[in-house]
Amino acid sequence: MSQVRIIEVGPRDGLQNEATPIPTELKLRFIDALRQSGLPEIEATSFVSPKWVPQLADAAELWPQLPPGPLYSALVPNQKGLESALKVGTPRIALFTAASQAFTTANINRTIGDSLADFREIIPAFRQSVTNGWIRGYVSTAFECPFQGLIHPDQVVSVVRALFEMGVDEVSLGDTVGRAGPLEVCALSAGLLDAFGTEVQGEIAWHFHDTYGTAIANVQAALNLGYRAFDASAGGLGGCPYAPGAGGNLATEDLVYLLERQGIRTGIDLMALSQASLEILAHLGREPSAKAQRATLAKL
Amino acid sequence: MSQVRIIEVGPRDGLQNEATPIPTELKLRFIDALRQSGLPEIEATSFVSPKWVPQLADAAELWPQLPPGPLYSALVPNQKGLESALKVGTPRIALFTAASQAFTTANINRTIGDSLADFREIIPAFRQSVTNGWIRGYVSTAFECPFQGLIHPDQVVSVVRALFEMGVDEVSLGDTVGRAGPLEVCALSAGLLDAFGTEVQGEIAWHFHDTYGTAIANVQAALNLGYRAFDASAGGLGGCPYAPGAGGNLATEDLVYLLERQGIRTGIDLMALSQASLEILAHLGREPSAKAQRATLAKL
Repeated sequence: MSQVRIIEVGPRDGLQNEATPIPTELKLRFIDALRQSGLPEIEATSFVSPKWVPQLADAAELWPQLPPGPLYSALVPNQKGLESALKVGTPRIALFTAASQAFTTANINRTIGDSLADFREIIPAFRQSVTNGWIRGYVSTAFECPFQGLIHPDQVVSVVRALFEMGVDEVSLGDTVGRAGPLEVCALSAGLLDAFGTEVQGEIAWHFHDTYGTAIANVQAALNLGYRAFDASAGGLGGCPYAPGAGGNLATEDLVYLLERQGIRTGIDLMALSQASLEILAHLGREPSAKAQRATLAKL
Repeated sequence: MSQVRIIEVGPRDGLQNEATPIPTELKLRFIDALRQSGLPEIEATSFVSPKWVPQLADAAELWPQLPPGPLYSALVPNQKGLESALKVGTPRIALFTAASQAFTTANINRTIGDSLADFREIIPAFRQSVTNGWIRGYVSTAFECPFQGLIHPDQVVSVVRALFEMGVDEVSLGDTVGRAGPLEVCALSAGLLDAFGTEVQGEIAWHFHDTYGTAIANVQAALNLGYRAFDASAGGLGGCPYAPGAGGNLATEDLVYLLERQGIRTGIDLMALSQASLEILAHLGREPSAKAQRATLAKL
């Protein structure tokens, strides 16, 4: 089977909702451990207002200290965030919107249209400043919204279309509440293929949350359908604030195990990866909970 | 999609390796809670020597007290176990062997051939005593053995063939170490279909362990291939003694969620099921760890 891309989102998506302050040095050690495990793409932070996400208030301090090697990206929520990102020379940015109006309104106090209008200013400004820059667009709540319920694939396709038309390099489709099943991945894929043709398989990343334990089955469904990019978070860090007590992001360990077991070489050392989040988990007072991580650590 | 059978194995497979003594009354409350959640088939215990599995030494005491409703079965490891099972009128029994010689030798001190020879005595004796009795054959290590490594599908097929020839009603194929991925399910299914035709889809149950987080993806693969019976353990209780610290059986909550989300009606109340194992988990000093269970309980 052909190469699969893993986009590690632990340092950003995995930490953003954590209330316990995490020193920048600890984040850097976490990122360095992820790098050493062989992860080639890491979303390192977000240039977001410290008022909204205090955990990531150190983005401008963290960025210049990132250990060289991986491709790093950062979330840029608005024009102000872009300015901060450009100041430190961020070459890869991620923009955030959703397929559910109710979700963007609750989450970023913008309609979907508002957020797309923002992107129409941010994207050219970024392209003008950064040669060979790379832009990802997040489409959150691509299956279900905690406020609005099920989301029709057509609604997702229309937001993805707007992002492609603005020239984003990749769209990451998020099962934010972690409730989708494989048949829904098939249905959304059918809508995407219908709208954009098979080329879309190389332009979509899937961002599954594992709240109800379906994430790995959804990855396999997407693999079977020809997609080749997946977001994941080391140790399963993170999650949706709207599903308290529940599982977070798909654990990178589980993803790597699934791929390697099926002959897809990732270049990632599963033991090193399983250890990479231990210091930060201990700092947060948590036990490792990702299945493949626990099973791997049990061999120590 | 057509009806799927869920065989709850928590009271037997989920508890057999637990060192903490569990009073019979607590097991009965657990089984009653499982029954009330709507589970139609429950493997309740094992008529095994108390010397080998002290946890299930109360089988003969437990059996007559089982609350009516579900179809109950019990593991019968040998002729002596059959006598105990027949004494209390057990109408459904399960026999245990494996696809790996090294595993049967380590686990039950018998070769595969020895265990099949035992079945050739146990099965007629059971059929003679019980009208309309039902027999399941377990084939453990159907993908990988902790001692012998990967198991070829042909080896599994040959054991399954022997069991079918002896007239077992169902074969349960176990990923005992919980390391298999969906492609391996496809490969084993191809071997089964080749040997037995599509009829086999109604005669096989899949018994996945979730050590590396692949169980739900394996279930989906088997569903896609036309299989309709799955073993699971409430709260993910149990596991393989050869994978310490690692995840246990596929959690029934995760299985029910996957099925229901995809329009397969199980008749099981996920909230009641998620609560069913809480008392026994607390007794064992454990937190609920099954994803769909935690997410469901978070709604309370």
